[in-house]
Amino acid sequence: MVTEDEAMRRAIALAARGLGTTSPNPVVGCILLGSDGEIVGEGFHAYAGGPHAEIVALAQAGDRARGGTAVVTLEPCNHTGRTGPCSHALINAGIRRVVIAVDDPTPVAAGGAVTMRAAGLQVETGVRRLEATEGNVAWLTAVRRGRPYVTWKFAATLDGRSAAEDGTSQWITSAPARADVHVLRGTVDAIVAGVGTVLADDPQLTVRDLKDGALAIKQPLRVVVDSDGRTPEKARVRDAAALTWIATTRELGAGPDGRVDLNALLAALFGRGIRSVLLEGGPTLAGAFLAAGLVDQVIGYVAPKLLGSGRAALVGAGVATIADAIELDLKDIAQIGPDLRFTAALRMKES
Amino acid sequence: MVTEDEAMRRAIALAARGLGTTSPNPVVGCILLGSDGEIVGEGFHAYAGGPHAEIVALAQAGDRARGGTAVVTLEPCNHTGRTGPCSHALINAGIRRVVIAVDDPTPVAAGGAVTMRAAGLQVETGVRRLEATEGNVAWLTAVRRGRPYVTWKFAATLDGRSAAEDGTSQWITSAPARADVHVLRGTVDAIVAGVGTVLADDPQLTVRDLKDGALAIKQPLRVVVDSDGRTPEKARVRDAAALTWIATTRELGAGPDGRVDLNALLAALFGRGIRSVLLEGGPTLAGAFLAAGLVDQVIGYVAPKLLGSGRAALVGAGVATIADAIELDLKDIAQIGPDLRFTAALRMKES
Repeated sequence: MVTEDEAMRRAIALAARGLGTTSPNPVVGCILLGSDGEIVGEGFHAYAGGPHAEIVALAQAGDRARGGTAVVTLEPCNHTGRTGPCSHALINAGIRRVVIAVDDPTPVAAGGAVTMRAAGLQVETGVRRLEATEGNVAWLTAVRRGRPYVTWKFAATLDGRSAAEDGTSQWITSAPARADVHVLRGTVDAIVAGVGTVLADDPQLTVRDLKDGALAIKQPLRVVVDSDGRTPEKARVRDAAALTWIATTRELGAGPDGRVDLNALLAALFGRGIRSVLLEGGPTLAGAFLAAGLVDQVIGYVAPKLLGSGRAALVGAGVATIADAIELDLKDIAQIGPDLRFTAALRMKES
Repeated sequence: MVTEDEAMRRAIALAARGLGTTSPNPVVGCILLGSDGEIVGEGFHAYAGGPHAEIVALAQAGDRARGGTAVVTLEPCNHTGRTGPCSHALINAGIRRVVIAVDDPTPVAAGGAVTMRAAGLQVETGVRRLEATEGNVAWLTAVRRGRPYVTWKFAATLDGRSAAEDGTSQWITSAPARADVHVLRGTVDAIVAGVGTVLADDPQLTVRDLKDGALAIKQPLRVVVDSDGRTPEKARVRDAAALTWIATTRELGAGPDGRVDLNALLAALFGRGIRSVLLEGGPTLAGAFLAAGLVDQVIGYVAPKLLGSGRAALVGAGVATIADAIELDLKDIAQIGPDLRFTAALRMKES
């Protein structure tokens, strides 16, 4: 006997397994409880075009779904896209009760709850809503804003330096912290870096196993913000390991600073189905994103070291005085090897 | 019935109550267990010239000490200073067994264990040694090095800035974090700041209750590192709230950078009985202390904010390349209001 609350917790955990592969769709998890309260089916949405979480769970449950309860992290869809509407599938399977964490905010897919209630199903929403919202934050934020959810990731010393005076930066953080970055990359649709970083460090910007160099099956799009198209032909970011977009002002137009218009960049990425972006340096590009109000989350890997000189982790975020400092809400601090990982959300300014 | 291990834990906690008032003496706590294993007396060393912890505990226990056990954080002294030797007092009180955490490292006071063993007492050392060493780390480090134990304290944003572009820095950290700094100040013998900080911020550098401004009874010595004697006559650091020393090159000589010789400064402070120093800015003075290898501990108050420009928390620590970064061992991370407090020890370089 599993409570609906426990089932929702499990559904949220299941949903997270789709992070990085479902865009432009959200991540969704579903648990089906039989009429005796035992789990009879479970599923998550694994990739766009593939079956929705509810369909996977129903297929697993078969007849045992009849008279049971569907516990699902997002309101079941009500439209026919690449797959049929989940609301109808749940009704047809004889589900009696549906427990939902988060309502679907998109006009095209919403309405599942209304349809199911009209068919006589009992529908409850809001169970573990905060937790499920957090699990789907990139997609929910992206569809609300019409641009991808942007996470700025940086690595620095305790005094905020990301390279030493002579330019060396390998390695500020430990091997476990660098491996953690690859896990993080695996959860996003695109990785964005400035051409300065490409010229200085020649990163590959892929998701790899750092022990043997093996590439992950699914690779985020690599995006180089490169106003004047200076990315070298032989840059590793242009190799065959993943798709790459060199974003220039010629293609996207210039922002107020004369460099690539970042709003246009994000709009173009959204148009390509990108819902989450990992912004990985350098400090000037991060400053431009922050100054434009285009960062949603910050993940900082901080090494217990001091440098006292060298490149700052962040430059030019448009803040002139202390009262205008960009405020963050710390969501998590974790020890990763000898380093610390801070996860923080940008605090919304009153407007 | 209290175990000796529990008694030692209590003795270490008691000892800490003397932090900030015992110099040039160490902090010491003592628990006396009667022959039935119950606590019959306890004490700590409260101020130099006052009774030692053992004497306080013996006075409380009276006859109940006979046949009992003394649990003490530091080897009882064996010499007559401003008070008589504790080893003799314990022997005369009829104590049968003495449990010690840390041996006394000073030639003048050591020998207590030997004396007590010769008198027939059972003496065990090393109980909770690491914990007691940590509790007395400033004094133990100071007597070993012949200079005060130096803690560098800074406040910064997550990106390592201690002031905004326009110079404003009030307040980077929260009221709880600032109150915590006053608690920290209350545990040291001297507060050191550079003249730049005095000229820029005019701090009072006292231990105060931030709610009503009330001064603590015991104030650390205020030290301004002021090579050319530029501290204004009306600077708050010169007020009557505490003693102040304006340390100039004329008095102390110049170091390799032409500014006050920091080794000479610390030697002079040690000569005055100072065993612990809190170094509070600015970034250049902190860099000079770090470059000279004169910092033992770092306490950073980090606010969950970003600035992207403005004054760096640390400048000129003598590090040119990443391999030479100053490495720290994180000892504690605490949330203080919305801010984080990092406590870290400088990792000793192999030499």
